Amino acid sequence: MLVSSRPHYVIALEAKFEKGNISSMSENVGFIGLGSMGSPMALNVLKAGYKLTVYNRNASKAEPLTNAGAKLAQRPADVATPGNIVITMVANDEALESVTLGPDGILERLGPNGIHISMSTVSPEISSRLAELHALHKSTYIAAPVFGRPEAAAAQKLWIAIAGDKEAKARIRPLLDAMGQGVYDFGEEPAKANIVKVSGNFMIASAIETMSEMLNLAEKNGIDREQIMKLFNTTLFAAPIYQNYGNNIAARNFDTVGFQMQLALKDIDLVLAASKKAQSPMPFASHLHDRLLTGIARGRGDRDWMEMATGVAEDSGLK
Amino acid sequence: MLVSSRPHYVIALEAKFEKGNISSMSENVGFIGLGSMGSPMALNVLKAGYKLTVYNRNASKAEPLTNAGAKLAQRPADVATPGNIVITMVANDEALESVTLGPDGILERLGPNGIHISMSTVSPEISSRLAELHALHKSTYIAAPVFGRPEAAAAQKLWIAIAGDKEAKARIRPLLDAMGQGVYDFGEEPAKANIVKVSGNFMIASAIETMSEMLNLAEKNGIDREQIMKLFNTTLFAAPIYQNYGNNIAARNFDTVGFQMQLALKDIDLVLAASKKAQSPMPFASHLHDRLLTGIARGRGDRDWMEMATGVAEDSGLK
Amino acid sequence: MLVSSRPHYVIALEAKFEKGNISSMSENVGFIGLGSMGSPMALNVLKAGYKLTVYNRNASKAEPLTNAGAKLAQRPADVATPGNIVITMVANDEALESVTLGPDGILERLGPNGIHISMSTVSPEISSRLAELHALHKSTYIAAPVFGRPEAAAAQKLWIAIAGDKEAKARIRPLLDAMGQGVYDFGEEPAKANIVKVSGNFMIASAIETMSEMLNLAEKNGIDREQIMKLFNTTLFAAPIYQNYGNNIAARNFDTVGFQMQLALKDIDLVLAASKKAQSPMPFASHLHDRLLTGIARGRGDRDWMEMATGVAEDSGLK
Amino acid sequence: MLVSSRPHYVIALEAKFEKGNISSMSENVGFIGLGSMGSPMALNVLKAGYKLTVYNRNASKAEPLTNAGAKLAQRPADVATPGNIVITMVANDEALESVTLGPDGILERLGPNGIHISMSTVSPEISSRLAELHALHKSTYIAAPVFGRPEAAAAQKLWIAIAGDKEAKARIRPLLDAMGQGVYDFGEEPAKANIVKVSGNFMIASAIETMSEMLNLAEKNGIDREQIMKLFNTTLFAAPIYQNYGNNIAARNFDTVGFQMQLALKDIDLVLAASKKAQSPMPFASHLHDRLLTGIARGRGDRDWMEMATGVAEDSGLK
Repeated sequence: MLVSSRPHYVIALEAKFEKGNISSMSENVGFIGLGSMGSPMALNVLKAGYKLTVYNRNASKAEPLTNAGAKLAQRPADVATPGNIVITMVANDEALESVTLGPDGILERLGPNGIHISMSTVSPEISSRLAELHALHKSTYIAAPVFGRPEAAAAQKLWIAIAGDKEAKARIRPLLDAMGQGVYDFGEEPAKANIVKVSGNFMIASAIETMSEMLNLAEKNGIDREQIMKLFNTTLFAAPIYQNYGNNIAARNFDTVGFQMQLALKDIDLVLAASKKAQSPMPFASHLHDRLLTGIARGRGDRDWMEMATGVAEDSGLK
Repeated sequence: MLVSSRPHYVIALEAKFEKGNISSMSENVGFIGLGSMGSPMALNVLKAGYKLTVYNRNASKAEPLTNAGAKLAQRPADVATPGNIVITMVANDEALESVTLGPDGILERLGPNGIHISMSTVSPEISSRLAELHALHKSTYIAAPVFGRPEAAAAQKLWIAIAGDKEAKARIRPLLDAMGQGVYDFGEEPAKANIVKVSGNFMIASAIETMSEMLNLAEKNGIDREQIMKLFNTTLFAAPIYQNYGNNIAARNFDTVGFQMQLALKDIDLVLAASKKAQSPMPFASHLHDRLLTGIARGRGDRDWMEMATGVAEDSGLK
Repeated sequence: MLVSSRPHYVIALEAKFEKGNISSMSENVGFIGLGSMGSPMALNVLKAGYKLTVYNRNASKAEPLTNAGAKLAQRPADVATPGNIVITMVANDEALESVTLGPDGILERLGPNGIHISMSTVSPEISSRLAELHALHKSTYIAAPVFGRPEAAAAQKLWIAIAGDKEAKARIRPLLDAMGQGVYDFGEEPAKANIVKVSGNFMIASAIETMSEMLNLAEKNGIDREQIMKLFNTTLFAAPIYQNYGNNIAARNFDTVGFQMQLALKDIDLVLAASKKAQSPMPFASHLHDRLLTGIARGRGDRDWMEMATGVAEDSGLK
Repeated sequence: MLVSSRPHYVIALEAKFEKGNISSMSENVGFIGLGSMGSPMALNVLKAGYKLTVYNRNASKAEPLTNAGAKLAQRPADVATPGNIVITMVANDEALESVTLGPDGILERLGPNGIHISMSTVSPEISSRLAELHALHKSTYIAAPVFGRPEAAAAQKLWIAIAGDKEAKARIRPLLDAMGQGVYDFGEEPAKANIVKVSGNFMIASAIETMSEMLNLAEKNGIDREQIMKLFNTTLFAAPIYQNYGNNIAARNFDTVGFQMQLALKDIDLVLAASKKAQSPMPFASHLHDRLLTGIARGRGDRDWMEMATGVAEDSGLK
């Protein structure tokens, strides 16, 4: 290593860029979907130095990004530069299909060498189908769904599960590093990353139900909710899910809505669909479906999925 | 504070002893129940310098302890020294009742100022009942069930949930520190610590089921079990339960039996009994009951409870 | 067949007595437990011509029977005549144990040749235990639990499942015929009849849940509840349970309480206990436990078990 | 009534025709789908005197019908006579869509005044959609799914749930009477009849699971399966489902496959989809999904759905 006269933090910065792929900085990046997750993710892409063009159905949400230097497109297709990269982060299969295959979709425009990084939580089926269609257009579809709530997205702390073509994955790695703190590679079939993603949401939902039942039992026995939660989430279950969700559930701190119950049901139903297709019965997932559907039927569809705990409480006569 | 000429670490050491109760070293301690958990716990008591008398139904299991300096008693009552401490670590309510209230039980002999530290996983009801009976005999019953598998017991790494009389809890604290790495206090009613304990086992069983279903889905979709487990247990679920159990379940490493399926069913049924009494329905616990009962019916009652995963696999046509 | 000059109904009456056992009329019959089922059953015994002595914890309930000619006893034991028959129809295991084995219980007094017909819904375990104790006293314990609601009891339309000693069963047959419209014999081990009884209640509870879920789905789709119920219960499901319960559930006719939710939970829990002992997992029973417990937790423990349907409705945001 | 010189059976036959609607005899009827249900239904239409044209993907199945006088069509569209009636009895939504809307489908050809009687078990959604499309072509779509196994179809003993346009329903009534023993009318929206149909299959599946669990418990307690089934299905549950299915399940008589497990899963999943759409949670349906999926995963997808009982047995360690 050479001795340098430049300040330490500059060196660190350069090192980081070298670790990635400096040439990637010259990529034009398109970003579609500026919801509570997409916005901070796009901002991190911009901060990392990429030329960014964004699109959102409701254009007003793009303001913070255009203020920070992003270009605003009027149609999905317009975020794409032929042969470059487009990231999509949209609500569901229908939205992904529309921005990709619709009349103003990116598929035609992206063209040879283009890469579509699909980071939304969608079904394995649509991933497989879009991967084929991109291949026909000589572009590449990479599934790269993320774990983390909006705060994690803002802090560049997402975990990313990825699957797709090897070369394309190498090319987009610096871009992913700009958004997350770790990338887990599940091979060449994009659909697998989507299975991984909904599996993770299944695990979280299951932990929420478990903590809710446990806390309700404790409370009805005169045991302090926060105290028993603390015992578990500082020892055997000392992990982010049990800490972040656990403490909020124990304190009934439900007002910040990070992930709506109705979206959780969508994901559990993706799990159940995958479970059916794979002939792999998942009784806990079936129960979580019932729990979430009950919450939605009782008017809590737009509340945070932590409110599964409210359903548990109601079933025990508590309000 | 006085200025001291002694090195810092010596002061720290003294402070630790003072924080506890140095005099407790002079206590005679009785220990009943030398199973896979009780044996290493008793050994740690001995190593901490206590005079130890042990009893086990099958006396041959006491050998390692007598070799290390413990005295062997022929009847439960004989481990007790009036006014001192007895620890029990037995299989279930019936065994606890027998060594406490039976003809050779400790209750009569323990007498005024005696403390019974009940560390077994038993029902809240028996704790309440024994607490009353001890009070009639002017001794004290403390519930202090533990979390951790035999390896943790050996390493003095148990977590202890405790409830009972305040003064007695202070007096036995050094003894607990000899066995565990942390003590969580749930107040003065012993039964509460037992609720906490079985709640913890419910949470673990629920995590085992969740991981089993998730891994089975992954495997049937051609995703590597160990790889997906690693994603989760190094990020969102980076906690001992997901790491220790998770890695073993992913690798189908079931041959070391730390906790038998039939004991797990006993504990889930304690949870369900408490849930019924408290009118706090727990559908996940109901399902875990069914899963464990199925495993037992299929001949796996004496296998580790991680083999709930085998049941999940069988339900999906895998062997 | 002989031509007879006597009126037809007299012949019919004689035939009935011959079919049974005329000598049994000389039996003194004791009856313990005058609840909503016991009272009409006892009245039918009296109407059939037996000398009847009754006991009930709350003596005022005996009035209709004493008015009709029954003798009132002050203690359980006093309903028994040595060598004769006692019928018990009480709330649960504890009550049965108390009137049988308690200080004023019937066991000692019943003596050689005495028969205890235990018609309550109790556990198989208590049946086995009481059968042994009666045998030690040279009397016989017969389990003979019944199916039917209070109206059926009044109309002499109960169905009776019976198990126990063969000779004793023959001797009490006329007495059973005075209370029911059919007797089903399950052999010589009394406990089996108790398994049969709680199995029947499991089947009814399961049908109630099924109809409730179906009707709720129909209603939420704008289909008339009574009309769809009628389709099923006049065709594929044209049976008393689907007709009587079904029509009431469809019409939300819950005000006549025939069988309380808390008693239903007791019975489902007897099923679950038997299921555990037999290593025969019953996931529907587990769910019914949860449904009933939820209803009780929400304050409906003393309502009819048909109100499981209210729980289903609440889970869907109705009510 | 007039005295007649003709033989009795001829009168009966005439009376039957009069009860219907003689003018309808002049209708040309098309029939698509000659599976185990469709074949006997079509034969009954023919026997009732209608001019019948049939279509089946596998034409060889049409032989018994052409032998009996039916005409064989080469394409779905060819069974339709403009302004007349077509009956469809096919496997699922996809098949129904194909024979209706496909290039050779009936929709265009049926034309004004034509009626499409859709008797298959399909989703409410496809019924609504096809009803709209028929209306655009001035024909009418009637949903008329049936209850009953192949034997019932052969015996003209089906139960029919019907919904759709009032006048059309009146016009097709004689045709329905030729196939079934009763028609239940659920109003003018076709989709409602489809909800009714899958609700019925839900009720049957639920009864199968209930009987299976009950019989397994009985057997493991040494109680004869057929005897306990008889108690229930001749008394409280004296209905066709508990008799036909119940006796076969008790005797493990599974070899005649009336309704395959994989079709049952299709229907339970239609129930769950309707339940989700209506926000009406159905935990029993969720469990039935798991039970059926397990059976399929274990290789029993083409066996009769009564073999849910085999799953129950396996869960209890029986083969």
